[in-house]
Amino acid sequence: MGDRPREIETLIEMMARLPGLGPRSARRAVLHLVRKRAVLLVPLAEALRRVGETVHECPRCGNLTTAEFCEICSDDKRANGELCVVEDVADLWAMERGGAFTGRYHVLGGTLSALDSVGPEELRIPVLVARVRDEGIAEVILALNATVDGQTTAHYIAEELAGAGVAITSLAQGVPIGGELDYLDDGTISAALKARKGF
Amino acid sequence: MGDRPREIETLIEMMARLPGLGPRSARRAVLHLVRKRAVLLVPLAEALRRVGETVHECPRCGNLTTAEFCEICSDDKRANGELCVVEDVADLWAMERGGAFTGRYHVLGGTLSALDSVGPEELRIPVLVARVRDEGIAEVILALNATVDGQTTAHYIAEELAGAGVAITSLAQGVPIGGELDYLDDGTISAALKARKGF
Repeated sequence: MGDRPREIETLIEMMARLPGLGPRSARRAVLHLVRKRAVLLVPLAEALRRVGETVHECPRCGNLTTAEFCEICSDDKRANGELCVVEDVADLWAMERGGAFTGRYHVLGGTLSALDSVGPEELRIPVLVARVRDEGIAEVILALNATVDGQTTAHYIAEELAGAGVAITSLAQGVPIGGELDYLDDGTISAALKARKGF
Repeated sequence: MGDRPREIETLIEMMARLPGLGPRSARRAVLHLVRKRAVLLVPLAEALRRVGETVHECPRCGNLTTAEFCEICSDDKRANGELCVVEDVADLWAMERGGAFTGRYHVLGGTLSALDSVGPEELRIPVLVARVRDEGIAEVILALNATVDGQTTAHYIAEELAGAGVAITSLAQGVPIGGELDYLDDGTISAALKARKGF
């Protein structure tokens, strides 16, 4: 394929590095972009440039923002003493879509992992301990993924906060709303059975 | 979700308009881009800008190029009198991956469609007729998709070129290499049976 312009080749290679896109879908996306040059390609390049120049992590919670602190940290109505610890910004967005949580967040930026040599310092855990001490936090909700790494991290944080006089909770585990038993894995069914409640 | 910066919201909306990406994968892609700012986001914005500024259609064949004419039109070794007519640039790339065709191409930019009011003028068919006359073309290979619109377009082109003294062929239809009969549709099996050959 010496016949494709280098500029197109470079763009296809970069698009193929996005999650959810492979070489074939990257080619389709690039052709689509070239066809929609004025309405999609040019605005997308500009949107990327703007995000690259303006968006950064909130120094307090790790959420994405263009201001000094993110909108959630700046919202006084959310300073209700509840702090929700999530793995990454995608999880914060998922919690916000639910719309049930009205406190503030702390984004770890990953999970502890001996294999990838990710320690507490890399995860903003010391910052979390300082926030619990300084911001009058009454309850820390560990909304970490129900994976081995997620739960290891949850246990580590619970130990770190043991003497801080703060309630530590985690999300309930059980059958998803609208979930069919037949499609659930054994672990979820066992957990839901153990945590059964009066009807 | 008033909590996501507008810049991020805009970028997610644009990424979701790419083929193969929906709202969820667009969110994942944008978070990935923000995390890999220096190695992916900034270079991708630059690659898009460069494609937007430099890449255009070859005025002769419709392929993408940054030069006056595309590499295939500029390659004298490919002026062998064979002209392969394809629907769009993706099909040209697919033919080139096959590596079996050594002539030149003519990209229509779509198929005839009464419903979408796409006529011959929109499809560069008059240019095709002129090329056949001017470039000493001996054979036109109609490599159009085996769809109703593709085949309608093929028949229209064949009629337009009827008096031009040029051989008109189309790709063979049959069982794909490595294809299993059990997974093939009835139309393909019928076509392969009709076109059967001595073993």
